[in-house]
Amino acid sequence: MLVLHHLEYSQSFRILWLLEELGVEYELKHYVRDTKTLLAPDEYKKLSPLGSAPVISDGELVLAESSAIIDYILDVHPNEQLRPIVGSRERVDYLFWFHAAQASLMPLVLMDGVFSIIQTRAPAILRPLLRTIFSKASDGFSKPRITKLLQKADADLSTKPWFAGEHLSAADIVLIYPMEVLHSSGRLDSYPNIKAWFTRVYESASFKAAREKDGKNSIVLNMKGR
Amino acid sequence: MLVLHHLEYSQSFRILWLLEELGVEYELKHYVRDTKTLLAPDEYKKLSPLGSAPVISDGELVLAESSAIIDYILDVHPNEQLRPIVGSRERVDYLFWFHAAQASLMPLVLMDGVFSIIQTRAPAILRPLLRTIFSKASDGFSKPRITKLLQKADADLSTKPWFAGEHLSAADIVLIYPMEVLHSSGRLDSYPNIKAWFTRVYESASFKAAREKDGKNSIVLNMKGR
Repeated sequence: MLVLHHLEYSQSFRILWLLEELGVEYELKHYVRDTKTLLAPDEYKKLSPLGSAPVISDGELVLAESSAIIDYILDVHPNEQLRPIVGSRERVDYLFWFHAAQASLMPLVLMDGVFSIIQTRAPAILRPLLRTIFSKASDGFSKPRITKLLQKADADLSTKPWFAGEHLSAADIVLIYPMEVLHSSGRLDSYPNIKAWFTRVYESASFKAAREKDGKNSIVLNMKGR
Repeated sequence: MLVLHHLEYSQSFRILWLLEELGVEYELKHYVRDTKTLLAPDEYKKLSPLGSAPVISDGELVLAESSAIIDYILDVHPNEQLRPIVGSRERVDYLFWFHAAQASLMPLVLMDGVFSIIQTRAPAILRPLLRTIFSKASDGFSKPRITKLLQKADADLSTKPWFAGEHLSAADIVLIYPMEVLHSSGRLDSYPNIKAWFTRVYESASFKAAREKDGKNSIVLNMKGR
């Protein structure tokens, strides 16, 4: 039996959504972040080969890395809509967004997040200086790259409802996490087609079921709300 | 005809290596970085949907994103050693490392690189302060995660010559770039099995052929050597 070791407010929400969309049997184990450090608990870190979420186990196998887990689950439960096959019309757009989500958009969003955490944790007297330095770094590196990706996303979604085409695919599922980080900080306001995609996501039965099982009021950790 | 738009000292070296390993026909177009900014030239930025390397074109299609390009090429030229098929013994290790390379190792290496560039470009008087702040951030975030990945890599390579098993696969090809960044800065000295993997890589005929066509003395941009 496949077990999803689900860390609250983490990238593992996507695996929960995928499993609900597939409608297959699995066991869900919940793990709660440390209330002070906000890090994963020690038992989670020990379980995971990388010390990070998500992690699944299946018999003897323990597997980390979001996209590897998604591909593994779709190997066990093949689904041509969720992972368009070689030669299909959806294949190339699927490949681009499935990979760009984790290898481009997520790292850029993470980098801006790390800049922000460094500032927050620095002595108050240093914060204005750090804000200036990180703004410059973000303007020169992460921001223009995020903008390019969002412009392409918005353009792609002007002609089709989902990132790979007419159906929800693993590309949408993997994109939800970085997109939600950007959405929750108001950075998607000028992208109407991405916002319309969010409406479709929020209305899908499998997403609602995943939110229900997750039991949280947000996918991403809202620092302000804590 | 597939065209590889090859930017010197960039992640696109891996696509060159893949094409040489496959032994298929393709056209190679060389692009040179701006000598002052070290960025890609404008004609490259215009060509790429993300403004970054690598990029391929194939008829009307223009595709960016390393792993998407690799999967696309392996769709067109299927190869069960380079991309182990569903159900094969190599499949799960392949999936883990193919994805971890671009979605975990590369972003962590890039983050340390950005920290270093910010320091280098800051006024001299601020550098010691920034060095302290970034060391702390790196010690708390990127370094332990890179170490976990390298420890797993070294352990995996103690039982097999290549990341997916007995044969070179796209996992090795995609890993070469972040591994080379770590190697060239002396950060692999305590990982004998990764170093032995490098020897196998450097001795492979397709890698040698790719280096020959690349025409550079290094895959990664050696800032000190310029």
